Amino acid sequence: MNEVLQVIRQHRSIRKFKNIPLTGEQVDAIVDAAQMAPTSAHMQPFSIIGVTDQGLRKKIAVHSKNPSIEECGYFFIFCADLHRMMLAAGPEQQEKMGRNLSFSYFYQTAVLCAALALQNANVAAESMGLGTVIIGGINEALPALDEWLGLPDFVIPLVGLAVGVPDELPEQKPRLPRSAVFFENRYDPDLKAKVEKYDQEIEEYYGARTNNKQKASWSGKFIAMLDKDLPLGGYTEYVKSKGFDLK
Amino acid sequence: MNEVLQVIRQHRSIRKFKNIPLTGEQVDAIVDAAQMAPTSAHMQPFSIIGVTDQGLRKKIAVHSKNPSIEECGYFFIFCADLHRMMLAAGPEQQEKMGRNLSFSYFYQTAVLCAALALQNANVAAESMGLGTVIIGGINEALPALDEWLGLPDFVIPLVGLAVGVPDELPEQKPRLPRSAVFFENRYDPDLKAKVEKYDQEIEEYYGARTNNKQKASWSGKFIAMLDKDLPLGGYTEYVKSKGFDLK
Repeated sequence: MNEVLQVIRQHRSIRKFKNIPLTGEQVDAIVDAAQMAPTSAHMQPFSIIGVTDQGLRKKIAVHSKNPSIEECGYFFIFCADLHRMMLAAGPEQQEKMGRNLSFSYFYQTAVLCAALALQNANVAAESMGLGTVIIGGINEALPALDEWLGLPDFVIPLVGLAVGVPDELPEQKPRLPRSAVFFENRYDPDLKAKVEKYDQEIEEYYGARTNNKQKASWSGKFIAMLDKDLPLGGYTEYVKSKGFDLK
Repeated sequence: MNEVLQVIRQHRSIRKFKNIPLTGEQVDAIVDAAQMAPTSAHMQPFSIIGVTDQGLRKKIAVHSKNPSIEECGYFFIFCADLHRMMLAAGPEQQEKMGRNLSFSYFYQTAVLCAALALQNANVAAESMGLGTVIIGGINEALPALDEWLGLPDFVIPLVGLAVGVPDELPEQKPRLPRSAVFFENRYDPDLKAKVEKYDQEIEEYYGARTNNKQKASWSGKFIAMLDKDLPLGGYTEYVKSKGFDLK
């Protein structure tokens, strides 16, 4: 197995970091890797904020309820960004372009391309022996986060990427069986038995692991999470407030 | 520079393939890599369809206006998938869960996680000496594609990934300058000069490259693409028809 497949195969999220900042070379290599990701129509519709100000990191950590943001060796925020594509246009063109970019199609494209860049960054960091964790919880800091980072319309912070020298080596969580994820020519309409078997496997994993033991199946966690009314409309309002009408 | 950074650094999209199918081992390594990507709350909200039926590939290629789909060594379709998470729930729970999952927050999360898996697949393929191209044009085959692949509600085909033995080595397209994408602590409100400089660089690149010479700047392409009324509402209607209300 080549070195790339090995690095990918060894992935686990790291949430405990040694108190060692990343070097400038490491940061550059991670950003360069992100920029080399494929991108729809060469749009490159993402931006990366490197949060080096300790006060700002602390504020984001508190609002996101995630200490890794403060404790990691370097903290990146990956944003979907359709703002830059409009800068060379005149005001009237910008208005029409903005109307087109506000469709959900471009929102989807920007999120997808930002994630391709993010995963390149992630794999690049891991290839240098660093640990990483992607932090979705930064949306808990919205809309204030937008002001702190000075993000204009059509720029949305999606997730954080905390990187650092690992201070733990957690077990790997078993993935869904390949046969429940990968299908030849046609989606399998009868996945329930496979999911139930995986639920058992995950329940055993959670019961046996060293840290954070719990009694839960894979499906059980989502039923517990989603079988109530979640206040998620606010997130859509936020997305719309940034210019993405999702028409 | 380690092997991982080298593979990432050497990326270019490959659209011409030798007539050599992928081996089963190559396909497995690519899918395994996709499954090892990080994922929000261990949701793994994506599915991968391997399209091996030549008639089906031809149909998708024609509708997507993209011959690589038919000519590559193997053709994957990456889907956002929130369907599998609900299978173990009872009908009433599923209804409530579906309401929560229909928010744009979960749509964004599923697209983002599917793209993380996609980029792992992409890098894995490239590490084995294969060439790849991500094909957004499969959405031109919607909604028929959904029927051909048997995709249920909450499963949306996002992009294709054509993989094969490269039969070309195109030049690499220059990326945006790092200083126009990566910011320390705060977004740069004054990017216009950097974009204009990059526009010149891209115009020179398009004018000088061996194949498909053209006179166009980076911004100029987007102004030409977006300074008219695009019929993109149909894509949102499709997304909503699959259960994602984007409330």
